[in-house]
Amino acid sequence: MTNIILCGGAGTRLWPLSRTATPKQFVDLLAGPTLFERTVARNAPLVDRWLIVTGVAHKELAAAQFKAAAPVGTEADYILEPVGRNTAPAIALACLSLPADEPVLVTPSDHEIRDTAAYLIAARTALAAARAGMLVTFGLEPAYPETGYGYIEAAAPSRKGPALLDIPGAETPVLRVASFREKPDLPTAESYIAAGRYYWNSGMFAFTAGSFLEELDRLRPDMLQAARRALDGAAAPSPRIRAISQSDMKAIPADSVDFAVMEKSGRVAVVPCSISWSDLGSWDAIHDIRKKDADSNAADADTFAIASSGNLVLGSGKRIVLVDVDDLVVVDSPDALLITRRGSSQDVKKAVEALKAGTTKDRALL
Amino acid sequence: MTNIILCGGAGTRLWPLSRTATPKQFVDLLAGPTLFERTVARNAPLVDRWLIVTGVAHKELAAAQFKAAAPVGTEADYILEPVGRNTAPAIALACLSLPADEPVLVTPSDHEIRDTAAYLIAARTALAAARAGMLVTFGLEPAYPETGYGYIEAAAPSRKGPALLDIPGAETPVLRVASFREKPDLPTAESYIAAGRYYWNSGMFAFTAGSFLEELDRLRPDMLQAARRALDGAAAPSPRIRAISQSDMKAIPADSVDFAVMEKSGRVAVVPCSISWSDLGSWDAIHDIRKKDADSNAADADTFAIASSGNLVLGSGKRIVLVDVDDLVVVDSPDALLITRRGSSQDVKKAVEALKAGTTKDRALL
Repeated sequence: MTNIILCGGAGTRLWPLSRTATPKQFVDLLAGPTLFERTVARNAPLVDRWLIVTGVAHKELAAAQFKAAAPVGTEADYILEPVGRNTAPAIALACLSLPADEPVLVTPSDHEIRDTAAYLIAARTALAAARAGMLVTFGLEPAYPETGYGYIEAAAPSRKGPALLDIPGAETPVLRVASFREKPDLPTAESYIAAGRYYWNSGMFAFTAGSFLEELDRLRPDMLQAARRALDGAAAPSPRIRAISQSDMKAIPADSVDFAVMEKSGRVAVVPCSISWSDLGSWDAIHDIRKKDADSNAADADTFAIASSGNLVLGSGKRIVLVDVDDLVVVDSPDALLITRRGSSQDVKKAVEALKAGTTKDRALL
Repeated sequence: MTNIILCGGAGTRLWPLSRTATPKQFVDLLAGPTLFERTVARNAPLVDRWLIVTGVAHKELAAAQFKAAAPVGTEADYILEPVGRNTAPAIALACLSLPADEPVLVTPSDHEIRDTAAYLIAARTALAAARAGMLVTFGLEPAYPETGYGYIEAAAPSRKGPALLDIPGAETPVLRVASFREKPDLPTAESYIAAGRYYWNSGMFAFTAGSFLEELDRLRPDMLQAARRALDGAAAPSPRIRAISQSDMKAIPADSVDFAVMEKSGRVAVVPCSISWSDLGSWDAIHDIRKKDADSNAADADTFAIASSGNLVLGSGKRIVLVDVDDLVVVDSPDALLITRRGSSQDVKKAVEALKAGTTKDRALL
C-alpha cells in the first residue's frame, strides 16, 4: 500500500516556532523527532510506497526528514505544490499518480499519536475496508465535547441494515457513516458525547486510489479534470518528483476532502479508534501533551521555574528564568519571543495578523 | 568642589540587564544615557573635580561613560577597589586623597533624579552647609510609607534651639537631625509620614573632606587608619589612578557611611528636598518611572502588546509579542530571559541565588 503524507499545512497558531519556511510538521515541538518524522516512523510498518505532497519550498526539508525517519534505503516520491489548494486536490493528484487498485492511507504530517499499537490495528482495518471498496475515515473516540473539530456520526442499526460492516480481515469494528457534522456549539457537542456514536474527524483516510477517483469524478468532475491536467503537465526534475506548475495548480478548485467527497459519498465507513491523538493545534495542546514537572510546568532543561506553575516554556538554548508566574506560554526563538497565557493561545493568530500588517522585517518573522 | 561618585554597586535585583561585568549604573535602563552618565551630566554644573570610586573591573567602563557624559576636555581621578567594603571605606579613601578644606558632594551613580533644578538648589545648599562644618544629608520628601528605606528624622524646634540652621548662602532650609531610623515596619512608616518631618535617606551627602575625616577619626579610628594605610600603599599606574591592593582593602573594616559616621555624629544636618528621585531598586521601580502607553505597558519599540496591559518589557532587539498577559516583567538579554510579575520583582534575588548555585555556565550569566 501507499502512504500519502499531506504536508501543506502552515501551522500559524504555533508561531514563532512554526514559520512559513519551516511549518509545524517540520519543527521540534515535542523534544526529539519532528511531527513529520514521527508520522513516517509510525506508518513505516504498513507502507510499501511513500508519496509526499508538499509545498515546493519544503521539498528539501521533507526529503531530509524523510531520510532521517524512514527505514534505511527507502525512498519517497514527491508531488510539489506551488500553492496550497486544500486537501481534496492534493489527494486527487496523489491518487492520479497511482494504480487504480492501490490501497492508500492518507495521513496528515502534523498530528501526534501516542498509542501506536492501537493506531496500527485501526490502520490495517481501514486498509482492509478500503480493499472492499469503502472510503474509510478514522473516528477518534472523543475525550471531551470539543467545539473546534468536525464529528462523524456512525450509523445506528436500522432497517437499512446493521451499522457494523462485514469486512474480511478487519481487526476492529468498521461502521457505516450516517453523517458528517461541522464544528458544533457546546450543547451540540455535549449531546454528541452523550449519544456515544459520534467521533472526531481526524483527517486520516483509507481507500483505493480508484475508489477515491471514481467518487471524485461523480461529485467534483471539474476538480478531477483540472487535477489530471495539472499532473499531466507537471515538470519532472527527477523520476521521483512531479512539480505542478503555478497556473495548473491555481486552475484546480480548492476544497477539503471532507466537503468535496467524504460528506457526499455513499461509500463512506468509519473505524472508531482510541489512539491518544492530538492535532497539536495550539500551544495549549502542546502543554497538554508534553511531560510536566511537579508544578505542571512543561519546560526545556534551560528553564529555572521559581515559585511558578502551569507554564509552557520552549526556548532556543538561552537560560529562561521564571519567578512567580503561572499558566504562561513562553516560546523563545532566535528572532522572536512570544508570551501569552494558557487558554488564550488561539489568539496567537492575532499576533500573526499584526506581523502580516507590519514592516518587511515583521513579515520576515512569519 | 569635588564630586565623589560611588559606583561599587552590583544591582543584582535588576538581573539579567545588570551583571557582574556591567552593573546597573552602567546599563541602558531608561532608554538613552546610563544612570552613571546621567549622574555625571546632572552634577557637571557644580563640579570642579571628579573622583570616581569603582571596582577595578569597571574602570574602563566608567572612563568611557565619563568621557561620553562630562564636559569636553574634563578628566576624572579614580580610586579602584579590588573588593567592595561598603560606602564608609570608599568615602574615606576619597577624602584622604583631597585637601582638608575641599567641599565634597558624595553621590551614588545608580539613582535617577528627574527634577534637576530642585536637585541643584538642594546640592548648592548642602555644599554651603558643608563649608559651615556640617555633615549634610539629603532628605527626600517621602512619597508614600516605603518600608525598604531608612528615614532621617529632622529636629523639631526645642530648648536645644531652633530646628532650622542658619547657613550663609543656603537657598533652601537646612535642618538639624534628631535621629536616623532603620527601615521601619509599615505602621511606623505611616506614623513618619503623618509626623511630617521624616525623610527618606537618599545616600547622597555633602561635607568637607576634613570634617568627614575628623568624625571618622573620632568614631572609627580603626577604619581611618586602615584606609590611610591602603591609600599610601596604592599602586599608581597613572597620575590620575590609585589602585588599592587586595590585602590592604580587605584590612579595612566594611561598613556603611550611615552606620559608621552619620548616625553617630553630632554635626549632621539634613536638606529636605523634593526632586523626583528613584533608586531604581527593582523592576517595579523601572516600570514606575518609564514612559507607558495607554495600556500602561512600558515597552521597547520592538514589542507588540495585544490585549495586554501593565507590562514592563525590555528586550535586546528581537521582536517580542505579548498576547493577553498583564502586569508581567519581561527582560530579554542575549543569553538570559527573565519573566516575573510586577510586585514580585524583589524575588529576582532568588533567581540570582539559583544561578550562583548552578553550573559554571549559570554563574557566567551573573
